[in-house]
Amino acid sequence: MKPVIVVHGGAGRIFKDREEGARSGVTTAALKGYSILKQGGSALDAVEEAVTSMEDDPHFNAGCGSVLNEKGEVEMDAIIMDGKNLASGAVSAVKCIANPIKLARLVMEKTEHMLLTDHGAKLFAKAMGVPEIPGEKLITERSRERWSKNLEPDSNPQEFKKDPGTVGAVAIDNEGNVACATSTGGLTNKLVGRVGDSACIGSGGYADNHVGATSTTGHGESMMKVVLARLILYHMEQGMSPAEAADTALNYMKTRVGGLGGVIVVSNSGDWAARFSTKQMSWATVKDDQLQYGIYTGEIHTSSVC
Amino acid sequence: MKPVIVVHGGAGRIFKDREEGARSGVTTAALKGYSILKQGGSALDAVEEAVTSMEDDPHFNAGCGSVLNEKGEVEMDAIIMDGKNLASGAVSAVKCIANPIKLARLVMEKTEHMLLTDHGAKLFAKAMGVPEIPGEKLITERSRERWSKNLEPDSNPQEFKKDPGTVGAVAIDNEGNVACATSTGGLTNKLVGRVGDSACIGSGGYADNHVGATSTTGHGESMMKVVLARLILYHMEQGMSPAEAADTALNYMKTRVGGLGGVIVVSNSGDWAARFSTKQMSWATVKDDQLQYGIYTGEIHTSSVC
Repeated sequence: MKPVIVVHGGAGRIFKDREEGARSGVTTAALKGYSILKQGGSALDAVEEAVTSMEDDPHFNAGCGSVLNEKGEVEMDAIIMDGKNLASGAVSAVKCIANPIKLARLVMEKTEHMLLTDHGAKLFAKAMGVPEIPGEKLITERSRERWSKNLEPDSNPQEFKKDPGTVGAVAIDNEGNVACATSTGGLTNKLVGRVGDSACIGSGGYADNHVGATSTTGHGESMMKVVLARLILYHMEQGMSPAEAADTALNYMKTRVGGLGGVIVVSNSGDWAARFSTKQMSWATVKDDQLQYGIYTGEIHTSSVC
Repeated sequence: MKPVIVVHGGAGRIFKDREEGARSGVTTAALKGYSILKQGGSALDAVEEAVTSMEDDPHFNAGCGSVLNEKGEVEMDAIIMDGKNLASGAVSAVKCIANPIKLARLVMEKTEHMLLTDHGAKLFAKAMGVPEIPGEKLITERSRERWSKNLEPDSNPQEFKKDPGTVGAVAIDNEGNVACATSTGGLTNKLVGRVGDSACIGSGGYADNHVGATSTTGHGESMMKVVLARLILYHMEQGMSPAEAADTALNYMKTRVGGLGGVIVVSNSGDWAARFSTKQMSWATVKDDQLQYGIYTGEIHTSSVC
């Protein structure tokens, strides 16, 4: 099997002055993940590496650069899933760690559980030797500005929901194993303790070697209502291509619950899709040593990976 | 539409001396929920009432009677879902409240979110005026005994996993709306902050007026791996009856990830099923003023509701 990786940096509205940073961030992440796949690494390692790269990049709403909750804090959710055995690990409402996706993988590999939350996740991180960092290290000036702006009495509560949320990656390795990973700071000015789709298996991501893998982004509560990731794979089980399955599921989410979002998909035969019902979604993919990426509908840049 | 309610009190092993209490608890819960439906109440109110009844009953692993985590504390998960609009509310890892299912409903109705966890859920409960109770009030002598027994060096870590987990209810009201509710104390001696299927939409429950509603019980991590509740409704969308869909999904969970469990299902035409791959599951249903209930495979007691 030829390896493939697809990543997204969030569906929503990307401001003009941040477009180049988003393009650069997703292509870097896709290339890092692809490099692992080319060396014979696993899909699981590739998606973890790609998501870690975007968690560390302040352009994205995950890890450093996460949006802030109502109290001005960063609280993050993340999930990783192995399509071979449906094993998965996730964390919700975690603070003061640099890479929630790495902690999610430790949950998968070092516990009998699949999701650890808040205080318990903190205890687990400590037991695993994951360093605690000051919460401020995850907060960018921009996140703080948007947070305080949303507290103003005349702010439009719907407006901030358009901020791109979530980063994610899906991959298939040369052994035909698929995996997905998703990580997010959630919704700007969310209630303390709000958990979104990204910690919730089937909503924020799903991976199954029998079908493929997907990672989702957009309005978390809408994606949870339709269990978006699992829905996409159902459609593929019924014979749809990744793009058809993605469009069908996104359209259903829009008509049934009024929610917008975006998804990346890879099938177990290596077909892929990056689709969104929002105005923009930053995405990138590498397949056959060819990098493709874009932000707007119809925008596809192609270049060779040497 | 004639109203129907189905409830479960957990799939797993029910000790002989607790069988009568389990039968009594599920029939009481089903009758309470049915009474609401007969008076023209909503499916949502009926499932909340039935689950509240079992949370208050120390025979079940939810609310009072919950099993204890590794630190000897009660941490609970719950979810409620409205099939009309796919709205849902859930809480995870909550402590010191009597009825997590009621808090889950408040999340659904009073916030723009779907899942609040741990510390944030506590703040929300306080803001909603939900009384905090001493954690000890939720702990029974039996829960404490089993917890300390599992800490002994020669305890069998697999043994306690057979304890029945989770209570749940599904219903259809006379307007044809379906709903589900699920509540649990989780796994005995679980890690602090472990969240199971019961807080996770699509795994612990799902309700959609276009298809039906289901609530699940059993080994939480296995149910999450296959997104069990959504899988059952997916099979029904493909034309299976509730019983066929339940058996197909439970069999898939057993063969694919080695997990056992049980489910209750009601279709949007009022057909129902209570199926399990464990040795036992306490369940009860009321339809056409007829109460049915049982614990073992093939055990069905029938009586008229006057």
